[in-house]
Amino acid sequence: QGILERLDAGEIVIGDGGFVFALEKRGYVKAGPWTPEATVEHPEAVRQLHREFLRAGATVLQTFTFYASEDKLENRGNYVAEKISCQKVNEAACDIAREVANEGDALVAGGVSQTPSYLSCKDKTEVKAAFRQQLDVFMKKNVDFLIAEYFEHVEEAVWAVEVLKESGKPVAATMCIGPEGDMHGVSPGQCAVQLVKAGASIVGVNCHFDPETCLETVRLMKEGLQAAKLKAHLMSQPLAFHTPDCGKQGFIDLPEFPFGLEPRIVTRWDVQKYARKAYDLGIRFIGGCCGFEPYHIRAIAEELAPERGFLPEASEKHGSWGDSLSMHTKPWVRARARKEYWENLKPASGRPYCPSMSKPDGWGVTKGAKELMQQKEATTEQQLKELFQKKK
Amino acid sequence: QGILERLDAGEIVIGDGGFVFALEKRGYVKAGPWTPEATVEHPEAVRQLHREFLRAGATVLQTFTFYASEDKLENRGNYVAEKISCQKVNEAACDIAREVANEGDALVAGGVSQTPSYLSCKDKTEVKAAFRQQLDVFMKKNVDFLIAEYFEHVEEAVWAVEVLKESGKPVAATMCIGPEGDMHGVSPGQCAVQLVKAGASIVGVNCHFDPETCLETVRLMKEGLQAAKLKAHLMSQPLAFHTPDCGKQGFIDLPEFPFGLEPRIVTRWDVQKYARKAYDLGIRFIGGCCGFEPYHIRAIAEELAPERGFLPEASEKHGSWGDSLSMHTKPWVRARARKEYWENLKPASGRPYCPSMSKPDGWGVTKGAKELMQQKEATTEQQLKELFQKKK
Amino acid sequence: QGILERLDAGEIVIGDGGFVFALEKRGYVKAGPWTPEATVEHPEAVRQLHREFLRAGATVLQTFTFYASEDKLENRGNYVAEKISCQKVNEAACDIAREVANEGDALVAGGVSQTPSYLSCKDKTEVKAAFRQQLDVFMKKNVDFLIAEYFEHVEEAVWAVEVLKESGKPVAATMCIGPEGDMHGVSPGQCAVQLVKAGASIVGVNCHFDPETCLETVRLMKEGLQAAKLKAHLMSQPLAFHTPDCGKQGFIDLPEFPFGLEPRIVTRWDVQKYARKAYDLGIRFIGGCCGFEPYHIRAIAEELAPERGFLPEASEKHGSWGDSLSMHTKPWVRARARKEYWENLKPASGRPYCPSMSKPDGWGVTKGAKELMQQKEATTEQQLKELFQKKK
Amino acid sequence: QGILERLDAGEIVIGDGGFVFALEKRGYVKAGPWTPEATVEHPEAVRQLHREFLRAGATVLQTFTFYASEDKLENRGNYVAEKISCQKVNEAACDIAREVANEGDALVAGGVSQTPSYLSCKDKTEVKAAFRQQLDVFMKKNVDFLIAEYFEHVEEAVWAVEVLKESGKPVAATMCIGPEGDMHGVSPGQCAVQLVKAGASIVGVNCHFDPETCLETVRLMKEGLQAAKLKAHLMSQPLAFHTPDCGKQGFIDLPEFPFGLEPRIVTRWDVQKYARKAYDLGIRFIGGCCGFEPYHIRAIAEELAPERGFLPEASEKHGSWGDSLSMHTKPWVRARARKEYWENLKPASGRPYCPSMSKPDGWGVTKGAKELMQQKEATTEQQLKELFQKKK
Repeated sequence: QGILERLDAGEIVIGDGGFVFALEKRGYVKAGPWTPEATVEHPEAVRQLHREFLRAGATVLQTFTFYASEDKLENRGNYVAEKISCQKVNEAACDIAREVANEGDALVAGGVSQTPSYLSCKDKTEVKAAFRQQLDVFMKKNVDFLIAEYFEHVEEAVWAVEVLKESGKPVAATMCIGPEGDMHGVSPGQCAVQLVKAGASIVGVNCHFDPETCLETVRLMKEGLQAAKLKAHLMSQPLAFHTPDCGKQGFIDLPEFPFGLEPRIVTRWDVQKYARKAYDLGIRFIGGCCGFEPYHIRAIAEELAPERGFLPEASEKHGSWGDSLSMHTKPWVRARARKEYWENLKPASGRPYCPSMSKPDGWGVTKGAKELMQQKEATTEQQLKELFQKKK
Repeated sequence: QGILERLDAGEIVIGDGGFVFALEKRGYVKAGPWTPEATVEHPEAVRQLHREFLRAGATVLQTFTFYASEDKLENRGNYVAEKISCQKVNEAACDIAREVANEGDALVAGGVSQTPSYLSCKDKTEVKAAFRQQLDVFMKKNVDFLIAEYFEHVEEAVWAVEVLKESGKPVAATMCIGPEGDMHGVSPGQCAVQLVKAGASIVGVNCHFDPETCLETVRLMKEGLQAAKLKAHLMSQPLAFHTPDCGKQGFIDLPEFPFGLEPRIVTRWDVQKYARKAYDLGIRFIGGCCGFEPYHIRAIAEELAPERGFLPEASEKHGSWGDSLSMHTKPWVRARARKEYWENLKPASGRPYCPSMSKPDGWGVTKGAKELMQQKEATTEQQLKELFQKKK
Repeated sequence: QGILERLDAGEIVIGDGGFVFALEKRGYVKAGPWTPEATVEHPEAVRQLHREFLRAGATVLQTFTFYASEDKLENRGNYVAEKISCQKVNEAACDIAREVANEGDALVAGGVSQTPSYLSCKDKTEVKAAFRQQLDVFMKKNVDFLIAEYFEHVEEAVWAVEVLKESGKPVAATMCIGPEGDMHGVSPGQCAVQLVKAGASIVGVNCHFDPETCLETVRLMKEGLQAAKLKAHLMSQPLAFHTPDCGKQGFIDLPEFPFGLEPRIVTRWDVQKYARKAYDLGIRFIGGCCGFEPYHIRAIAEELAPERGFLPEASEKHGSWGDSLSMHTKPWVRARARKEYWENLKPASGRPYCPSMSKPDGWGVTKGAKELMQQKEATTEQQLKELFQKKK
Repeated sequence: QGILERLDAGEIVIGDGGFVFALEKRGYVKAGPWTPEATVEHPEAVRQLHREFLRAGATVLQTFTFYASEDKLENRGNYVAEKISCQKVNEAACDIAREVANEGDALVAGGVSQTPSYLSCKDKTEVKAAFRQQLDVFMKKNVDFLIAEYFEHVEEAVWAVEVLKESGKPVAATMCIGPEGDMHGVSPGQCAVQLVKAGASIVGVNCHFDPETCLETVRLMKEGLQAAKLKAHLMSQPLAFHTPDCGKQGFIDLPEFPFGLEPRIVTRWDVQKYARKAYDLGIRFIGGCCGFEPYHIRAIAEELAPERGFLPEASEKHGSWGDSLSMHTKPWVRARARKEYWENLKPASGRPYCPSMSKPDGWGVTKGAKELMQQKEATTEQQLKELFQKKK
């Protein structure tokens, strides 16, 4: 059954977690470029991560094609592109995802994300060409449906949806925005309306903000769609980091990004609360983004097991709400084998010399940055290339 | 070259990270029993984790045989032991570790850990028999050396070392104790002396405490050995969690153990500081325990790259001190591409409703527990079996 | 010169601090009733506090007549009213304030605040009668101007202003509301407009929220007045407690109110930042409310000394930005004798087991409370009287 | 009845709080010099503070003669000494304390504290002369007993006790040290022994550390006395600041000293716990030092009211454990009118951008400071004089 048949039938679809962050910690992705050449260089590592998410309950496996547009690979990841073509990276990603999907009952989604071309003010034709190049691979490899994700500007997201719709396959679209809307100031409700009008059957948010903030953004999207009398399925794939302190552009501006985010990592219990709230809000495609590890996805599947009627495979290694602790030697650890305990725990950071919130960096702190912002991004592709040359 | 040749030559040996915690998050180990039946059930997952540690710079791969003594598998993991024999678990662990070790320049260490038999007051003969059963497999599979690790009582650790020494192979021994010493009140210095006298060539600590506390314990061990005019190599494999607030028995008594420890996870920069301090203290076998993921091990290898003369393979995906950020689009993120930034960052928890330290649970809070403590542990094997039956 | 002459001439007027909190700590006011019978019982204590505020730079001394309406004294403070009449309390307050004001260049302001009569749904005539009773004393004692302060409902504040205007003296009016507006949902801008239309020459906020929040509320009031093309002087007298976590009803709903607020107390440097921001926003009547001690008021006077052209008397015992530390014995304490140090200090709480924010209690947590809310307050005067009888 | 008669009879003696900190906030003492010229300049302010402590339950009023030795006034406070003689300051202090003591049932204690002469290595004769000069005033004014307090070096404290003993009056002696002992490394137990041998009838600690740490230090003193078979009454007057993070020299080295300590201020409930613990430890002279305001002293008197049989006068304005809140309008505030609530509250700081602990500054951070330390103090009197001249 396809993604829309499932959602139309009221099924809860569980997404997977964040590949770039998980594989960075495993040693296969470089922070900064964040490009997915590991699909060619180390397929066994990518395959294993897909398998863990499948086992944890994911019913959608996204091809590991984040930032795999040709312009991005050439630009930020060009040390890679010299050796590995954009096409190879995308093809390998499709093959691995399909191989693992076939081990269970999962769909494969081909994914595109925002491009440097757009950020450096290339025109619509050029930007669309980048998406079309990836789409060609997805069609050849026959993915089940398509996701346009991680867009800060609804204009570019709409272009992506328009390209992906050419395929005739179902299209989902998620933006990495918060309640304040996209980088041009378009509100979440308006973003959702534009995406659905462009052809997306599923809309929502991914990345950049914590679960609570993402749900608020999806709620605003839902309101926007209702006001416009449009219908679409809702989707959310938030960060697995607590970010109550971030500004409009999300966690990238936090001083801890990307190498000091550990104290912000959500627990499995935080994820269970998120899954329940997402469900109550009417979201039926529930997954995660950066920071979501397999056990976080399992927490979604366990929280919604009553509604879905089954537990994921990996739950054979997990007691519900910590009840596997009931066999611990120490009586006070056994006392933790219950829902009330974990639900109410306020976990300490073990870091008394650290604060609990940070002031985000950002345009505000860089003189003249606001004007640059209006030209879309501070640094053009050209400037980045120069930087890269200098670096080498 | 064997472990002792390397250490005698002044080489820095890098250990691997914590399997039970990493594989619990990946969905292959059950918290509570913490037993390693995944070696038989899901060898591909165990293999991949070994490979990531190797790639991160580990020069010792420990067989995933933690809590793999027959009495433990029967007891806490008996739903497993009904299907998979203790011997199979240990054999598979050796095969996988060797397979991956051969992909690089790493040694395989067979490991034993504390037993329920000791905790339920079985006599020396019975406890030693448990170790010998595992040792038989290690000899058959020809591991490079042996590690007796995770002992709370030096008496049992000495018994383990005595058994392992029968093999003729080098023996390392680490206890999961803090500066206050073992559960019978034997000081770290005395523990080290007894272990070396029993035949250990390498002594130190693993698990239960954060890097800072572990280094203090090893320092006390070193002092004890110096006072006794004994020589041994030093080793440390701490937690990857900040635990400034834990009591004598370590992180198990913290209310966050084991499912709410996320805010305590150390950053890669914390690990670099640990590696440097460990080196300065004279420790030459430096690794990690629970919570250490591949990127934490890589941080040890990167910090000590000047001394070792080379970077680990996984550093191809990591810039030194975050310098891969120098190509980021946003100028304020590029400004984070330097050592001073990460070295001085006080990372926020994003959890303003949570404290920074916790009061540990423990014997103190359980009436009459002190007397039980003196009978070694509160719950006998028999009681645990009954609990398990009831649970089923 | 009267208050309006001063403000019209562009002078900065400095208010005093919070009497009920300061005198509660000194042992003369009872938390709960918060009534000012100390003016009769212990005039020397009230006089000394006035004197300290005068010395710290206050140019307005408010009569200590908070909650001194007859209905309040009978109700919450009735153990007092049995012995001391409402009139006596108000008269003594005027005498003491005038005595101290004459020691320097300060004005005396007679103050009224919200009444139990309004909260228990008495009609306009009855509520106004309560204000008029206090006003009679203020006229007899010839205070310099009048302040209607600490109102949660603009309707009652307007009634108070109307009564006070009968006197012909200048009237200031401040509400204890935040940016969300009054308890009936009237926005700050609308509140300001109604108060000015009722005759207030000075409007603003006092109490219930921290300096930052209060300034935001005054900013909204200013916008409202500008939109309505009305003119008035602006005034702010916030809490001396950090309350980033409070809800619509302010600090009373925080779990720490009123006996655990210590960790939230603002430093003198926080106050200097507040004074500067208030000035920049166009506020010229700048003081404090609960928690403001004499040294906090001095911080306002010191920050604005360049604009005012002089320091307060109490600055003879205070170096600017800590420069009195330059003579300390220890070199590292001497290093603290500078502005940059104190301006940037992030003071630690010394409480690692405590969080940094709290969830406010409130109507939300009390079943059926919303309906009660619409009847203005949960507990009628009658219910309170019963409670009090039971208590005795 | 004298102090020793009271203590010998098992009476609980309650001390007063910290004058320099309280009067600094009220505008009468300058931080840095910390000298008590206010006794001459503003006797009404000193009198009022004494009165508040008396009312709060203090049975000992200490003359406000802290740092009132001639060498100190000349040195750090010399802008004062030019106008007001050392003798005048001490005489006025005695007169005010006696005046207020006569309003109730309190004793007057004349106090001396450590001298700059000792710190700049003057000899015993010179240092003793400074104490004798103050003692002459105390004898002339006939104080009830004497306290030598705030000594970092036991050698100087012994000299002070020897001088004070010449008077024939009872002598108490408290040091501002923690469990690590005095600045020459003399343990608390040894300090206590030396002080008792020199003639002190009451020994203990004051200032520099929080209540918990001070009690631990007194416990060590008690052990030392027991081991030496000496008898003395015990006394403690700690800070009203939480300082779990300070080093050997106490709160002066914390970055927040002295102008950013607000978030560390203890609540009245913290003080009740302290009073109970002090009592259980056998301490019968229980008071406070810097940070202790009248309501903190009242908390001691209220906690120990069952043992003493009466409440202090100021309790007429205070319900036990917050029960005055039982008449509050809002039901959830009424719910706070009970012991369990306040006892278990973990008060939030309202400062999410601040840490909960700080790293102390200190000798460790100043190159070569250890050697200087051994010459007693880094800066000689001469150097300070030069500094002062430069400053002027």
